[in-house]
Amino acid sequence: MAELTWTETAPGVWKAVIGFPDGLTPLSLIGAAPRTEALAQMVPARLPFGLDLVSVTEAGGGRLMLALPLEDEEKLYGTGLQFMRMNQRGRTRYLRVNSDPKQDTGETHAPVPFYVSDRGYGVLIDTARAVTMHLGSTMRLAETRKEDALDRNRDSGWRATLRSERAEIRIPEEGAGIYLFGGPALGDAVRRYNLFCGGGALPPKWGLGFWHRVPAMYSAEEAIAEAREYRKRDFPCDVIGLEPGWHSRSYPVTYEWDAERFPDPKRFVDEMTDDGFRVNLWEHPYVSPESPIYDSLKPLSGDYTVWGGLAPDYSLNAAREIYERQHSAQHIGIGVSGYKLDECDGSELTNNAWMFPAHASFPSGLDGERMRQLYGLMFQKMTTDLFRSGNRRTYGLARASNAAASSLPCVLYSDLYDHKQFIRALCNSSFSGLLWSPEVRRARSAEDWVRRMQTVCFSPLAMLNAWGDGTKPWSFPEAAPIIRHYIKLRMRLQPYLYTAFARYREEGIPPFRAMPFAISPDEFASAEKRRLSLPALNTTDGAYGKRSEPQWDDQYMIGDAMLVAPLVEGEVEREVLLPAGSWIGLESGERYEGGGVIRVRAGIDTIPVFVRDGAVIPMTAALPHALRPGEQAPLELVHFGTKEGEGWVYDDDGETLDYERGACGWWKAAVRKTAEGGYEGEFTGPGGLPASYSGVKWRFAELGLNDDGDE
Amino acid sequence: MAELTWTETAPGVWKAVIGFPDGLTPLSLIGAAPRTEALAQMVPARLPFGLDLVSVTEAGGGRLMLALPLEDEEKLYGTGLQFMRMNQRGRTRYLRVNSDPKQDTGETHAPVPFYVSDRGYGVLIDTARAVTMHLGSTMRLAETRKEDALDRNRDSGWRATLRSERAEIRIPEEGAGIYLFGGPALGDAVRRYNLFCGGGALPPKWGLGFWHRVPAMYSAEEAIAEAREYRKRDFPCDVIGLEPGWHSRSYPVTYEWDAERFPDPKRFVDEMTDDGFRVNLWEHPYVSPESPIYDSLKPLSGDYTVWGGLAPDYSLNAAREIYERQHSAQHIGIGVSGYKLDECDGSELTNNAWMFPAHASFPSGLDGERMRQLYGLMFQKMTTDLFRSGNRRTYGLARASNAAASSLPCVLYSDLYDHKQFIRALCNSSFSGLLWSPEVRRARSAEDWVRRMQTVCFSPLAMLNAWGDGTKPWSFPEAAPIIRHYIKLRMRLQPYLYTAFARYREEGIPPFRAMPFAISPDEFASAEKRRLSLPALNTTDGAYGKRSEPQWDDQYMIGDAMLVAPLVEGEVEREVLLPAGSWIGLESGERYEGGGVIRVRAGIDTIPVFVRDGAVIPMTAALPHALRPGEQAPLELVHFGTKEGEGWVYDDDGETLDYERGACGWWKAAVRKTAEGGYEGEFTGPGGLPASYSGVKWRFAELGLNDDGDE
Repeated sequence: MAELTWTETAPGVWKAVIGFPDGLTPLSLIGAAPRTEALAQMVPARLPFGLDLVSVTEAGGGRLMLALPLEDEEKLYGTGLQFMRMNQRGRTRYLRVNSDPKQDTGETHAPVPFYVSDRGYGVLIDTARAVTMHLGSTMRLAETRKEDALDRNRDSGWRATLRSERAEIRIPEEGAGIYLFGGPALGDAVRRYNLFCGGGALPPKWGLGFWHRVPAMYSAEEAIAEAREYRKRDFPCDVIGLEPGWHSRSYPVTYEWDAERFPDPKRFVDEMTDDGFRVNLWEHPYVSPESPIYDSLKPLSGDYTVWGGLAPDYSLNAAREIYERQHSAQHIGIGVSGYKLDECDGSELTNNAWMFPAHASFPSGLDGERMRQLYGLMFQKMTTDLFRSGNRRTYGLARASNAAASSLPCVLYSDLYDHKQFIRALCNSSFSGLLWSPEVRRARSAEDWVRRMQTVCFSPLAMLNAWGDGTKPWSFPEAAPIIRHYIKLRMRLQPYLYTAFARYREEGIPPFRAMPFAISPDEFASAEKRRLSLPALNTTDGAYGKRSEPQWDDQYMIGDAMLVAPLVEGEVEREVLLPAGSWIGLESGERYEGGGVIRVRAGIDTIPVFVRDGAVIPMTAALPHALRPGEQAPLELVHFGTKEGEGWVYDDDGETLDYERGACGWWKAAVRKTAEGGYEGEFTGPGGLPASYSGVKWRFAELGLNDDGDE
Repeated sequence: MAELTWTETAPGVWKAVIGFPDGLTPLSLIGAAPRTEALAQMVPARLPFGLDLVSVTEAGGGRLMLALPLEDEEKLYGTGLQFMRMNQRGRTRYLRVNSDPKQDTGETHAPVPFYVSDRGYGVLIDTARAVTMHLGSTMRLAETRKEDALDRNRDSGWRATLRSERAEIRIPEEGAGIYLFGGPALGDAVRRYNLFCGGGALPPKWGLGFWHRVPAMYSAEEAIAEAREYRKRDFPCDVIGLEPGWHSRSYPVTYEWDAERFPDPKRFVDEMTDDGFRVNLWEHPYVSPESPIYDSLKPLSGDYTVWGGLAPDYSLNAAREIYERQHSAQHIGIGVSGYKLDECDGSELTNNAWMFPAHASFPSGLDGERMRQLYGLMFQKMTTDLFRSGNRRTYGLARASNAAASSLPCVLYSDLYDHKQFIRALCNSSFSGLLWSPEVRRARSAEDWVRRMQTVCFSPLAMLNAWGDGTKPWSFPEAAPIIRHYIKLRMRLQPYLYTAFARYREEGIPPFRAMPFAISPDEFASAEKRRLSLPALNTTDGAYGKRSEPQWDDQYMIGDAMLVAPLVEGEVEREVLLPAGSWIGLESGERYEGGGVIRVRAGIDTIPVFVRDGAVIPMTAALPHALRPGEQAPLELVHFGTKEGEGWVYDDDGETLDYERGACGWWKAAVRKTAEGGYEGEFTGPGGLPASYSGVKWRFAELGLNDDGDE
């Protein structure tokens, strides 16, 4: 057993090094400075166990295993963008980047070797290797008690995975940096992780509007016509995304505009901009022999190709410079707002296989395994830096990520399309410093369409991705008014959403977050017990049984005050776990008592959203697109329920990085009861109104928006 | 690049060693002597490339990679019990033992690091590690031509995986033995592999009868009653399998009879035997603390438990002796005929995870990774040896296997249940020295029931596994006569099936085999072209397209003369790829011209089976159970079609290993046309009739069995 030497590397963050790790890791690649000031302002950190209980041993086959103690009822969350479950306790997670996370192995677009416990701590393994974590899925002989061995024939308590008392993590041969993030609560550990990685990402304001991606082979004219249709039909939209066809060649890509479809890219982007749209460009990493940068990148690339294209080694400055020069000249310089990075995750599982192999070799010395783990991160960092160098923010999409990504303004997406899994991914991303878009593509029915659109409007990136099927928000005419309503509601909620992101940036609190952030393990457990019903073992279809505890992975918080409980096709009612206190239906105004499970009914025109009694939600008008610098709109401060309470408004120019140099402010909206039994509000902050708002209107004791004024 | 030194280790088998492999491997574990005499009698071996074109290099991350050349249209088959595809070309195969082969990763119950090419050679990596094979799924930059990079937007020939010119196999760090098996044909390479591994398995005659597994918690009385029901209802049956409930405790197991359900095991087995039934016992590897052998096995076990039970290290003589002593005394000594070894494959993928981890450590020095790869093989070997020591054959089931398994009389099965996948597994098992049972459990409908029963009756092990749902062959009354008919047809075909297995044993030719054994790559290609139709890319559901070539993985040969083309629920007709020559419908007598694709219709009462024109199929009566030593039945020699031709009959006592010492014989049944335009048959062999048969009856120019005489 080797010694672990722990140092408090930042307030509430302990570090130990095993072996002799070298080369790029997620932390060193992102290279963000820990937000030590914000860390220091948090409640004092606590770990539920002594550091002496964390051990590293050489196990079978010479494998280095890190072991951490687990309590009996402890739950573990995180490990990245997981689609199949929220509580990872009892699972072996193989955290490899993979574009087909269709089975519950741990492999996914964004596997993050970081987990948090509901006992209030987090564990990060900083390595570019694919890590295997046994999160209570292994049972040592030395710790097996006779009474653990039940008889499946007779004991109804039998389960395939015994409660193990420890998590075991396989450390890569060369070693790795280990980080422990203190609580006391789960949310504190996540905050410390996010702040240690540089704080959360703050998107530009337009990023929180509605996005639309046009069909792959659309021309400039067609894209412009599609954008104008949004304005004509009174659907807000901020971003038009172009898909593979904007390239002269794709699969592999040239990064050059197709001369036929986009004869004058600058004029195209200008026209879009004039109309209030940003242009986002799809791309992937593999460079076509027909790209002008192919020859110069070739000696800086891996020794395997993908679709006949180069896999450049962007850990090299020289390679980055070629990419950056080309992208600056061709895209960013003419006003493109960001990228959607596809295909950076690799697959062996679809009908066809594509990716450089793990044994590929890159000029920097990285192998294919590590490059694949880092590739998505590398592109996110590279494009973000490109915009940063022009004092511009970006907001984009990427299909792969890893640890240390909190500060990157990129949202994950997937070719998967199960609505429930998409909601679960939204929950799970909050544990790992990730953002996720449950993008809408097509729908089986108007009902499916509406339910998906409702969810995406309450997500980090509200996007209709019509690349493959050309759907529009009005594709189901009977549902179009509902869709318009929810896109407009998202626009009205921009001040609230933007403020939630600002807290992500400054305090590390995820803007969208799963229920374990909002309720204690005890509350969770008692709610579970109420809902828990064990179906009988199905001995033929699933020999090990399908018994599972409800995980409340189908509802989530936005900011502190709002809880979203989407419905999916076929549902007209559902259970909702409401934290303690009273809650008000955002639109219905209905009052619910929290501290347990309620049932709500919601017709197709409603997604159940709940606001804490007393909360003040800052809202604005249902603008056709987000506020641009210098533009103003009215600020509406909506007080829900009957309790005294408050809310916050963050504001800045919404577009540049000047906020990093202080060009921003926080305003507090507080509501008190008056002696007459009414309410009065106080709006205070750094001198006058936030620059983006033309005036403040209060609404008190709001019993729900009731469809007011957004159409 | 390291040097490879090749030696011809057996006729037509070349060996090279990379690194310093040590410890157990599949070949050393099985330890079967190569059948060098049979190998020497084969056509001279040929490889389609020079051995100098096989190389080993150190690639990215210090990985040792073996590379072999691939031709443009070459197809690769094998890699074990694969469910998702037959042609493995273009795939990366991760050959790890895994109980949930639901995705096409290469992981499966029986991953075998052996593949064969339709160009006529085979490649085996003899290691206990989980091997990764890139079977043409990687493309080196140095070999990428500009014209390989197509544009997916415009070129309809675009595909996600480019045709790579080489296979790359990752060799474990410590090295491995590499074996090349010569052709000239694919079938020759497979034969050499099987003969090198000791020849194929010859089951006892009763093994080829019908099997029934009773519900898990049945008592001795209930099991006997169930068996008698077979006799009463006139359904043949040879084996009754007991499931977990025969143990006093299972999950983990005791290996001890439950005193309540089986108060007198000896009497139970005797009663079964008297009635013509054999008893097969379900078990798994993990030993309960309540088993009397727990304490003595504990120091001989791995340092992790499964379900609270020990995972013994059966590479140790001392552990094997404990297992063997207990099994001899409690089961084999009282007449038990064999085992069904469950749960030896491990899972991280079901709703619950169970298995010792890769970093487990066993007293022999094996780690969990290698033990998991070898565990199924180890049990198969151990139980086979146990029966062998009493000069008895066994035939059993196992859920995990690996390379070098050809000589083991064990049939694989799975918790999966897709009928098409089950047929594909039957095809694929033939490339890797494996046997597979497409066992029947339940059915959605009478039609599903009949189609599954038809398939299983033409498989290595015809079993109804009612452990979970208590189904019987007569569960769908309207379908019962059809089921009875096909079980009886299987009984009538016993001489043909048994002879096909004898060729497996002596010549290494799989009794059940996929179409590439029977037709050349050219015939295959021209048939494919006829059937090939490319559906359009579905850009939303599967971004990489679902284009796939027909693989003819839904039909197979039994012996040389019989082709089976099952239908699944919902089908009333199908395409069949018929090799050149004329074929006669086994039952219908219809004549078909081969050398291409035909369409056949088959109502629910028929499974399309075709016999080569001129073939002589040895058959017998539809006995209620297989012939026991000393028993006799009539032998029927059925000549199909109009050509002159022949068939073979192998015979021995069907029960002991005396055939290994010469107590067996081969008889030839040849048909010639007479001058009068009729036919005459000659039955020749070692002195008189085969001992199992009371007389020989010829039937000439048979136009199909037409339901004669089997009811």
